[in-house]
Amino acid sequence: MIKASVVGATGYTGIELVKILSRHPRVKISSLTTRSEEPVSLDKLVSSLPKGHGLKLETFSLVNVASNSDVIFLALPHTQAMDLAHDFYKAGKIVIDLSADFRIRQAKLYEVWYGHKHTKKELLGDAVYGLSEAFRDEIRKAKLIANPGCYATSLLLVLKPVLEEKLVELDSIVADSKSGVSGAGKKLSETTHFCSVNENFSAYKVNQHQHTPEVEAILAKFAAKKVNITFVPHLLPIDRGILSTIYMKKKKGVKAKKIYQAFKSAYEKEPFVRIRPEGQFPAVKDVAYTNFCDIGIWASDRSDRVIVISAIDNLLKGASGQAVQNMNIRCGFPEDMGLL
Amino acid sequence: MIKASVVGATGYTGIELVKILSRHPRVKISSLTTRSEEPVSLDKLVSSLPKGHGLKLETFSLVNVASNSDVIFLALPHTQAMDLAHDFYKAGKIVIDLSADFRIRQAKLYEVWYGHKHTKKELLGDAVYGLSEAFRDEIRKAKLIANPGCYATSLLLVLKPVLEEKLVELDSIVADSKSGVSGAGKKLSETTHFCSVNENFSAYKVNQHQHTPEVEAILAKFAAKKVNITFVPHLLPIDRGILSTIYMKKKKGVKAKKIYQAFKSAYEKEPFVRIRPEGQFPAVKDVAYTNFCDIGIWASDRSDRVIVISAIDNLLKGASGQAVQNMNIRCGFPEDMGLL
Amino acid sequence: MIKASVVGATGYTGIELVKILSRHPRVKISSLTTRSEEPVSLDKLVSSLPKGHGLKLETFSLVNVASNSDVIFLALPHTQAMDLAHDFYKAGKIVIDLSADFRIRQAKLYEVWYGHKHTKKELLGDAVYGLSEAFRDEIRKAKLIANPGCYATSLLLVLKPVLEEKLVELDSIVADSKSGVSGAGKKLSETTHFCSVNENFSAYKVNQHQHTPEVEAILAKFAAKKVNITFVPHLLPIDRGILSTIYMKKKKGVKAKKIYQAFKSAYEKEPFVRIRPEGQFPAVKDVAYTNFCDIGIWASDRSDRVIVISAIDNLLKGASGQAVQNMNIRCGFPEDMGLL
Amino acid sequence: MIKASVVGATGYTGIELVKILSRHPRVKISSLTTRSEEPVSLDKLVSSLPKGHGLKLETFSLVNVASNSDVIFLALPHTQAMDLAHDFYKAGKIVIDLSADFRIRQAKLYEVWYGHKHTKKELLGDAVYGLSEAFRDEIRKAKLIANPGCYATSLLLVLKPVLEEKLVELDSIVADSKSGVSGAGKKLSETTHFCSVNENFSAYKVNQHQHTPEVEAILAKFAAKKVNITFVPHLLPIDRGILSTIYMKKKKGVKAKKIYQAFKSAYEKEPFVRIRPEGQFPAVKDVAYTNFCDIGIWASDRSDRVIVISAIDNLLKGASGQAVQNMNIRCGFPEDMGLL
Repeated sequence: MIKASVVGATGYTGIELVKILSRHPRVKISSLTTRSEEPVSLDKLVSSLPKGHGLKLETFSLVNVASNSDVIFLALPHTQAMDLAHDFYKAGKIVIDLSADFRIRQAKLYEVWYGHKHTKKELLGDAVYGLSEAFRDEIRKAKLIANPGCYATSLLLVLKPVLEEKLVELDSIVADSKSGVSGAGKKLSETTHFCSVNENFSAYKVNQHQHTPEVEAILAKFAAKKVNITFVPHLLPIDRGILSTIYMKKKKGVKAKKIYQAFKSAYEKEPFVRIRPEGQFPAVKDVAYTNFCDIGIWASDRSDRVIVISAIDNLLKGASGQAVQNMNIRCGFPEDMGLL
Repeated sequence: MIKASVVGATGYTGIELVKILSRHPRVKISSLTTRSEEPVSLDKLVSSLPKGHGLKLETFSLVNVASNSDVIFLALPHTQAMDLAHDFYKAGKIVIDLSADFRIRQAKLYEVWYGHKHTKKELLGDAVYGLSEAFRDEIRKAKLIANPGCYATSLLLVLKPVLEEKLVELDSIVADSKSGVSGAGKKLSETTHFCSVNENFSAYKVNQHQHTPEVEAILAKFAAKKVNITFVPHLLPIDRGILSTIYMKKKKGVKAKKIYQAFKSAYEKEPFVRIRPEGQFPAVKDVAYTNFCDIGIWASDRSDRVIVISAIDNLLKGASGQAVQNMNIRCGFPEDMGLL
Repeated sequence: MIKASVVGATGYTGIELVKILSRHPRVKISSLTTRSEEPVSLDKLVSSLPKGHGLKLETFSLVNVASNSDVIFLALPHTQAMDLAHDFYKAGKIVIDLSADFRIRQAKLYEVWYGHKHTKKELLGDAVYGLSEAFRDEIRKAKLIANPGCYATSLLLVLKPVLEEKLVELDSIVADSKSGVSGAGKKLSETTHFCSVNENFSAYKVNQHQHTPEVEAILAKFAAKKVNITFVPHLLPIDRGILSTIYMKKKKGVKAKKIYQAFKSAYEKEPFVRIRPEGQFPAVKDVAYTNFCDIGIWASDRSDRVIVISAIDNLLKGASGQAVQNMNIRCGFPEDMGLL
Repeated sequence: MIKASVVGATGYTGIELVKILSRHPRVKISSLTTRSEEPVSLDKLVSSLPKGHGLKLETFSLVNVASNSDVIFLALPHTQAMDLAHDFYKAGKIVIDLSADFRIRQAKLYEVWYGHKHTKKELLGDAVYGLSEAFRDEIRKAKLIANPGCYATSLLLVLKPVLEEKLVELDSIVADSKSGVSGAGKKLSETTHFCSVNENFSAYKVNQHQHTPEVEAILAKFAAKKVNITFVPHLLPIDRGILSTIYMKKKKGVKAKKIYQAFKSAYEKEPFVRIRPEGQFPAVKDVAYTNFCDIGIWASDRSDRVIVISAIDNLLKGASGQAVQNMNIRCGFPEDMGLL
């Protein structure tokens, strides 16, 4: 039994963490904190909790959280997690940060994309990028886990096998992603007003979304070479889920069969990645409310194109689910514990 | 005043035709036909009609329709329009066919993609492809107008300027399209059950949608060369609208400015194509329930990519609206009459 | 040709007014004003306007609007219309106020329900309640028209015939209404965040909605007696439309046939009220984007209950459509001009 | 560990049963059957199952299911469950029937409302109505449990306390219910086509829904008197959830406080019924994907009206969740096992 806390328990990813952790057989929730001054009711936020659950939201206190937690999840907006992560790290806690603050190794790059000075550069080298399927060994020993972005997860799981096995042209990658609205968080904005989203669909941050640098940095690891991608996210009129359609060109001479096999062998033993049979493609609803990433592949010897489609729940495999998966890896629990 | 009839007035495109034509100042609706045996109430189908409109659905009769119509819209499923189109054509009527039956010049290609023998090949040469902005001169004199597919319209209006001006690499074109459910028509299927579509999103007919050949045939005209595209349609949980995100590579040496200018000069005077200012992109709701096609462009001198996004209402500019636009062109009416 | 202005053209009802008036054959739009400091693009707000429409949003100026308008529509939040209405009224203009400020004759009642002092009580007596079907004669001569609330319209059109003909028990009226989100306006709030509304449904302001007093006041006119109703509004996860299900008890001895006849004879000649055949009931989509109010009735000689269901578009018959209907009545235009 | 089977595992309620039972710590799933001839993939139907789950859909065989099950859930359409229920009952199995076939004691009444002869009348007396909170003692010993209808559950949990304590006028009950589309089942029909439901809302089976007799029969037990209700169901454009708004008149002299207390004391110890604090009302999303029934009450000493609003997930507390709750009661497991 470990003691886990969620700092920022009232946002969408915080709420999902509470749901998962409250059912996890090896976790005792010690603190759920909020910085909001107004008293919020946890029952309203997480209405699936059983009667008499005994959990409470508390005002954040560094000392409190540090003293009663083994693992601390930071579910805070970007730029607000770095200082806290640092403090908990120094206090010897396992920190799982769901923000972007430690995802990009180069502070400069972070500062360009997030428009904010990085105040804890010294920790960037110690942070492990928490894409469970790719960095399991590092996660096992990590003290600070930088949980991947939701779009990044949906792209990287697709691109890992084909880049590692050098099957596609690196300058050919186009990623067209579509996300549900919860990905934009709870903050009020004209963009997330019901009448703006409902019966609508549009692209945003065309070729300039802030997940691009974290994706390209990890892709460079997979390919052992610099990689640039073209990435356009779109907003779907649904609550949850990301579907990414990824277009590439095969390297000359690469057979379609090789592509299919690369995915199969990469993910056969993974509990949370499922490869569809040839000719089948995932839908958002196949993975909504689960920690799965489903992947479908189109390849043919009569075409140099490869099209791969992935689907995840942006709040689970794209955020809180993967965060708990990483906790399980880190703490030596079965990797799917509490996640099925 | 011309007399116009709609054959197949009870499907989605038929209903839109009734709505538009019933308000068109130069049109008298003469026949609205259905092949359904069950009596359907026109008021239920087209609930926006005023009280006492006097219109009626009638069982289809070739003689009747031919004798009392100047223009005949065929709003029938693919493969069911060709014989009727032929008969009305022979009777000297102006035929505007919303099905795919006369969109593809090569009967063989049609037969491969639609799985049905083409019984009126002799008419294929006379049919004019009804992309209003591209073939206005031919439409003016056409006796048989093959109204374009909805996806095709959303792609061709984007690709026309860049291909005609030879600005992009022809083997680089990727079209990722997303359509509302009305595009699938009224036929009942598991795919269009509310619970299948709602809160969901998925690709279908990955790289094998039947609009591909009609698009590639017209692109070959624009480029004066054979063109292959990669095209993946997706199903949006909304009623109406198509958004297409189209990815290309610029030819070497082409400046971003040139791209923007190509669109501006191509469409400046078009009543139904609107080019967005740099950095702005259309949303489905901007064009839903209108005959507009809105286009936004991303191009930069620091990248060889071009990304163009178009939005149309699949039932209007993608079907019935463009059909009436073509009627206006053909009959010498103001092109936007009844469509604003 | 009259000159009409919209004060508050950027809210949902303002936008609908612009759409209708820009197509109205007898209206020239003279001013569209906003109090917002930030420059807004009219094309973005009202994306259905044709290219080159020439309309502009301008900063509000009393003198400007007064000097160049015959009719002025006030599409402002409650409490913000009263002073302007007064000024335009004094300037001899026809004022059609879509806010609640002049709907309730008794200033005290207004102040209780809207929590705001009424500063122009002297005008309350001159204001005509703009339920077109009920007060057409007064509207014809009105200088200040208080356009009804959307819920109020959906209830009053149902209750008018049965109360005027004394067919139901006055203490038995229960109105269960369901409205789309546009009814809540554009203001950002947690309640209208996409993820709050989507896949959700709930009641609000249970038995204490601010349309209650205006409904009860008009009902008292219909019944020539004080009437209290029970009214619970609910929020539907859709853009537009109100469906109200109204439960009553018949007075002893009243036959079902009498109920049906009361509706038929009340609305037979009305251009915008349609009574469904026995056993049929309206749906929101039957009236969305139209100015119609559709009504279905359940009554039986074996039961003392009567159930009547009405459907309207909250932004049209429930607001801007009825406002233009009132303008048409007031200006002697055909009542449905610009509304079909 | 008990062995449980689901007959009809491919419908919406069957799928939910598979989800719950596959995670239930005291249940081993023995058979999941379908009558469909076409091979269906269980992974597609229940995409949340973990990789390598080992479950399979099989063609229904009475002998098979009977021989390897302790508890059998019948998730079949109405009229198709009665014969099977009989056979399994005779074989000494615990039968939990989710259809309407054994909900109504009087065969005649069943036959009127369901239009189908009841072939196993002899079992009607032994069937226990599975409203867990009302008939827990009988369920504990039941061999055949008739699981309540979804609407019925949402109404009966509200009406139980007020009728048992004789707080309201029996002829005053009006129930206005709104349900998500999954309540209509998977069968294809024009009514459940996406474009029919989306952005729409309407009533159906006005005052003649088939759950009415089962509700009135149980109400008669609660009130020890015949009770008639007025009940109008409506279709919401969402996947899951029922919200019922129930209107009553208090008996003379009954204080509001008494109403609130009745609910509190009736449900304080119930694990799955939650009473909201005064002035708060439940939303569908508060209970979606849970087995809870949330209830909010409006009562005042200045009004003779009482308004009570309940929310449930139609597939869980309204069907499969309550079915497992009943299994837990029947088998002596903790009542909330597998349901939180």
